[in-house]
Amino acid sequence: MNCKLIVEYDGTAYAGWQRQDNAVAVQQRLEEAIEQALGIKVSCTASGRTDAGVHAAGQCVNFKADTVIPPEKLSYVINRYLPADIRVLSSCAVRDDFNARFMAVAKTYRYSVYTSKHGSPLHARTHYCINYRPDVEKMRAAASYIVGTHDFSAFCASGSSAKTTVRTVYSVDVEENGDVITITVRGNGFLYNMVRIIAGTLIAVGNDKLEPAEVEKIVAGAPRKSAGATAPPHGLCLMNVEYGGADSPI
Amino acid sequence: MNCKLIVEYDGTAYAGWQRQDNAVAVQQRLEEAIEQALGIKVSCTASGRTDAGVHAAGQCVNFKADTVIPPEKLSYVINRYLPADIRVLSSCAVRDDFNARFMAVAKTYRYSVYTSKHGSPLHARTHYCINYRPDVEKMRAAASYIVGTHDFSAFCASGSSAKTTVRTVYSVDVEENGDVITITVRGNGFLYNMVRIIAGTLIAVGNDKLEPAEVEKIVAGAPRKSAGATAPPHGLCLMNVEYGGADSPI
Repeated sequence: MNCKLIVEYDGTAYAGWQRQDNAVAVQQRLEEAIEQALGIKVSCTASGRTDAGVHAAGQCVNFKADTVIPPEKLSYVINRYLPADIRVLSSCAVRDDFNARFMAVAKTYRYSVYTSKHGSPLHARTHYCINYRPDVEKMRAAASYIVGTHDFSAFCASGSSAKTTVRTVYSVDVEENGDVITITVRGNGFLYNMVRIIAGTLIAVGNDKLEPAEVEKIVAGAPRKSAGATAPPHGLCLMNVEYGGADSPI
Repeated sequence: MNCKLIVEYDGTAYAGWQRQDNAVAVQQRLEEAIEQALGIKVSCTASGRTDAGVHAAGQCVNFKADTVIPPEKLSYVINRYLPADIRVLSSCAVRDDFNARFMAVAKTYRYSVYTSKHGSPLHARTHYCINYRPDVEKMRAAASYIVGTHDFSAFCASGSSAKTTVRTVYSVDVEENGDVITITVRGNGFLYNMVRIIAGTLIAVGNDKLEPAEVEKIVAGAPRKSAGATAPPHGLCLMNVEYGGADSPI
C-alpha cells in the first residue's frame, strides 16, 4: 500500500525535515514512529525538505508499507509514537505511483512577521519579530513583481544544485492583522531558501532599504546580492502542497 | 519613582506569576532582572496572579525604585536580563499611589481553543485542543447569560479566599476563525479559576453536554459542580488590565 500522510510540525527542535547524521530531523522521528506503529521499517518521501527551524502545517509525505490497519486509521496509530511537536493530521491510501516529492504541482508557504519594539514571547517560535513597522503598501507593490515566471537567481542561496533558476510564482499575498504581517507565497516549486529570501526582500522594501521598482530588475536574473537578506527560518511555515488530484484517496 | 510595566510572557515554563518556594515563577524572574538592571532589590506587584501555565499579553506590574534611568527606557534595560519567554513591552512612571493590584477596574482574558482530531503542534502551547467541533451559536447563547452581575459560586474553584462570589462580567465574546475559537471575557474582577471554568462551561455547552438555558440558573449562585470542568491553563491569556486613567504616565 502507498500511504499518504499530511503532517504538521513545530520545527523549533529539529534540524529540518531530512535525516541527518548528527542531529534529529522530522523524517527520523516520523519513520521511527511508523516503525513502532507497524513493526516494519519504512522510508518516507516528503514534498520537499524544510530547513532547520522551519515549520509545517501541511507537509505531504508518502511511504510504502504492507499493513492490515485501515489507511484512515494510520494517523491515530502513528500519532501514539510521535513526540508532541509532530502530528499526523490525516492518512489515506493513494495510487501506487504517487510520489510526494516529484508529483507536487504547487506549494504554499507562509512567512509570518511580528512587529514589536521588544519582541513577543507568545509569537517567538513562529514569527520573525522586527522592531519597526514596515510599509505594507510598498511590500505589496514589490510582491506584484515577484508573481510570474522569472529567473530567480537572486533568490537562491549558494549551494543549490537546481538545474534551472527559473520558477513560476502564482501569487504573493501580503496581509496585515494587528501587529502580525504575513507573506503567503504559492508557486510551482522553490529554489533553496527562495521563500525566505522573498520574505527578506519584501521586509527590506517595507523598511525603505529597497524600492519596489528595483524588485522588477532583481527577478530578471540579477545576482544573489541584489536581493534582500535571508529571513530567519522560524517565521516560515509550509502550509500545503498540491498534486492536481494525483494524491486522491483510493 | 513608582514604575509601571506592561509585561508579556509565555507561561509554559512557569509556576504562574507569584513567587514560589519550590518552582520558578514569573515574578521571581522579573524581580531578578530588575535587580540586575538597576542594582537594587525591588518587589513587584501585578494586577493579579496568573496560574501555572497561563500566559499574559498585557500583565500590568508596578514597583518602586530610585533610578536615574528615564522611565521609558527601563523596558530596554530590564529586557536585557530577562529570559526570552518574558518581555517588558513598555515602561513608564506613574503617580505614587498607583497599585497594579488594588486599582484595577477591569481585566480582559482570552481563552483559545483549537479544534482538530489530532491536535496541533503549532498551537499546542497557547490553545486548548479539542477533537470535535463545538456549536458556536449555542456557546454564544450561553455566554449571554454570564454577562452581568451575578453570584459566580459555580465558577469558583475551592480554596478561594474571596469575601464575596459576586462579580460583574461586562462582556463574553465567542469568535470563530477557521479552526480557532476564542472566548474573550472582560469583567471587574475574577474569582479563582473563574475564566477557566467559564471556558469549560461554554465548551461543554458547545459539545451538547449542557443546554444554554441551564447556564442562566448556574450564574444564580449554583454550586461549583453544576458548571463545566476547569479548562486547562495553557489556553488562557491575560490580555490587558484597565485602571480608569490611574495608570497614566506622569
